[in-house]
Amino acid sequence: MLHADTRNRFLAVFEGIREELVAHMKSEKMPEDAIAWLSENLIYNVPGGKLNRGVSVVDTVTILLNRVPTDDEYFKAALLGWCIELLQAFFLVSDDIMDSSISRRGQPCWYRVSNVKGLGKVHNIAINDSCMLEGAIYHILKNHFRRESYYIDLLELFQEVTYKTEMGQLVDQITAPEDNIDIGKYTLPKHTFIVRYKTAYYSFYLSVALAMRMCGVPDVYELDGKTIEPYKEADRILIPMGEFFQVQDDYLDYHGTEAQIGKIGTDIVDGKCSWCVCTALAHGTEAQKQLLYENYGKKGADQAVREQAVKDMYNDEGLNIPKRYEEYSRNTVAEINAMIELVPEPGAEDKSRGDRLRRDVFRAFLSKITDRTA
Amino acid sequence: MLHADTRNRFLAVFEGIREELVAHMKSEKMPEDAIAWLSENLIYNVPGGKLNRGVSVVDTVTILLNRVPTDDEYFKAALLGWCIELLQAFFLVSDDIMDSSISRRGQPCWYRVSNVKGLGKVHNIAINDSCMLEGAIYHILKNHFRRESYYIDLLELFQEVTYKTEMGQLVDQITAPEDNIDIGKYTLPKHTFIVRYKTAYYSFYLSVALAMRMCGVPDVYELDGKTIEPYKEADRILIPMGEFFQVQDDYLDYHGTEAQIGKIGTDIVDGKCSWCVCTALAHGTEAQKQLLYENYGKKGADQAVREQAVKDMYNDEGLNIPKRYEEYSRNTVAEINAMIELVPEPGAEDKSRGDRLRRDVFRAFLSKITDRTA
Repeated sequence: MLHADTRNRFLAVFEGIREELVAHMKSEKMPEDAIAWLSENLIYNVPGGKLNRGVSVVDTVTILLNRVPTDDEYFKAALLGWCIELLQAFFLVSDDIMDSSISRRGQPCWYRVSNVKGLGKVHNIAINDSCMLEGAIYHILKNHFRRESYYIDLLELFQEVTYKTEMGQLVDQITAPEDNIDIGKYTLPKHTFIVRYKTAYYSFYLSVALAMRMCGVPDVYELDGKTIEPYKEADRILIPMGEFFQVQDDYLDYHGTEAQIGKIGTDIVDGKCSWCVCTALAHGTEAQKQLLYENYGKKGADQAVREQAVKDMYNDEGLNIPKRYEEYSRNTVAEINAMIELVPEPGAEDKSRGDRLRRDVFRAFLSKITDRTA
Repeated sequence: MLHADTRNRFLAVFEGIREELVAHMKSEKMPEDAIAWLSENLIYNVPGGKLNRGVSVVDTVTILLNRVPTDDEYFKAALLGWCIELLQAFFLVSDDIMDSSISRRGQPCWYRVSNVKGLGKVHNIAINDSCMLEGAIYHILKNHFRRESYYIDLLELFQEVTYKTEMGQLVDQITAPEDNIDIGKYTLPKHTFIVRYKTAYYSFYLSVALAMRMCGVPDVYELDGKTIEPYKEADRILIPMGEFFQVQDDYLDYHGTEAQIGKIGTDIVDGKCSWCVCTALAHGTEAQKQLLYENYGKKGADQAVREQAVKDMYNDEGLNIPKRYEEYSRNTVAEINAMIELVPEPGAEDKSRGDRLRRDVFRAFLSKITDRTA
């Protein structure tokens, strides 16, 4: 959880963004009811999350600069952070329509709210609303960054990460459609693709890459006679880290207590393409796979019994998902740490420059994740 | 209708684009079934339209250069044209979901096709499919234009026009929701906003502005001691032209014969926010407005009678929509022509340069439209 001060300072920047987007609509002579609609779309869907992704841009800029950012630096980093939050809002609003979800962040999904505004069957207006959240990103970037030398890099970053996330969503949708579960399609490589593309790029890589661009970290530089490609380093480290984060999520859904994860896991009953089921399908016996086909993702009166059967199998000594998870987790953290330690740190003469990659950027991310399982 | 040769040469470029997008997915190790899905999404939704918007980029480049483009120039212009067609496909696929439409370009809407592929309730995957069509634009632009000095201008053009189109769609959706018609919301200014933003920017302005960027037309230049802002000129002329195009469409829906427009108009029965109904509401008597409230957009057994009552009223001597349309049409064409004649032509010494705006760019567009009513 973010500190209240951190959160409030960051939220104040959002209010300015909303006003700026509304003022733009006024300047384009958009009718009042449509302006009010956009404003509500923004308020309802953008600032209500955990804000971890957005605040990470500020945190990463602070680490890169190795000092407290100036007010202007803070503002710019926060704007980029809110652009990630806008991107996330775009994904969540449209994912909720695609998945026919009920609630999000403790309130009804936006498409269900817009549906009851007396406009008839226009819950589908939420599709356009989600696209406007995406469109707002580029309006904000243009207004605030177009004179910066790294403006083009920001545009390309957002476009590439958006496209990658949509690629992940495509594979997710055809592999694991909500109401037509076929675990025959679930494999560990597909799981890896989905979590890397659908989640890791925008949740892990994007905030660091944006902060690096803002601080002027170049595509290539030399350090101690070595050629560094810092964005490739960031990709190499953060994408497996994002994947690990999601595997952890999948594991806790089955193995975490309600006190630990703040909810009761439903992946088995919902038939999700989780790391656990992919691992069970990859390493289970024929009988165990048969049990999965018969009980995984089956809703109905006996769903609790079926769920327990799957859990018992996960716990079974031969398959032992907890043991496999511990192993995966230990190895992955060790690998990520090893990669971090290979990132060359700026030497004594470069200590004060902000345009060089630093290990602490990745350490900060990793500690947030590993603390979670503590 | 495009000549078969024009069409075929242009279509050949699309096949290359599809292969390029598929090759990119392979290089990202996307699973085969997802790659096949994207390929089908592209084939089904992108090349099947009239292609006027896309080919207009090639035509405008030809006029600006004042000569036959080289193969490389043709290829670049055609790529930009296909990016408009991708943008249009993005809009159409998602609009069809929002409007619960049945068919498009003589085939079932994509969301209805993707719905029957045995994946369950995933017709909603079409939302993500539409977004991937948008994402593909930026992938193509990056692959082919990133070294051009005008690359950033292309990105901004697509982003701004996309955002404007979404603004138009928002106003359209809350003003005229398909299944909850309230003609009390219909006004001529709203009609103007909707057609300009939802249609004119991407259908008229975008192709010319892209061609101008490709030919190196600068933001500002001097000619005969006058300062020209060519993109503002293009906006000033093409947006009213696009509006006129849509008004014509609205008028022909009510007044055109099936032979003229190739279909039977349904705007009155569907309750569309058409130029005709907005004009009738602005200029009709109280009794005429009452008649509209009672009969416009009312489906049912007596819909033909209601439709005829509205048509009779449109024809009524007092309101006389045909006369008002002729007047509007004459005035608008005259105004647009006057604006075109005010565009300074490159002088004798500049005749062969391709980076200056020319009146023929606009004349070519206008003649296509006025020919339509002939």
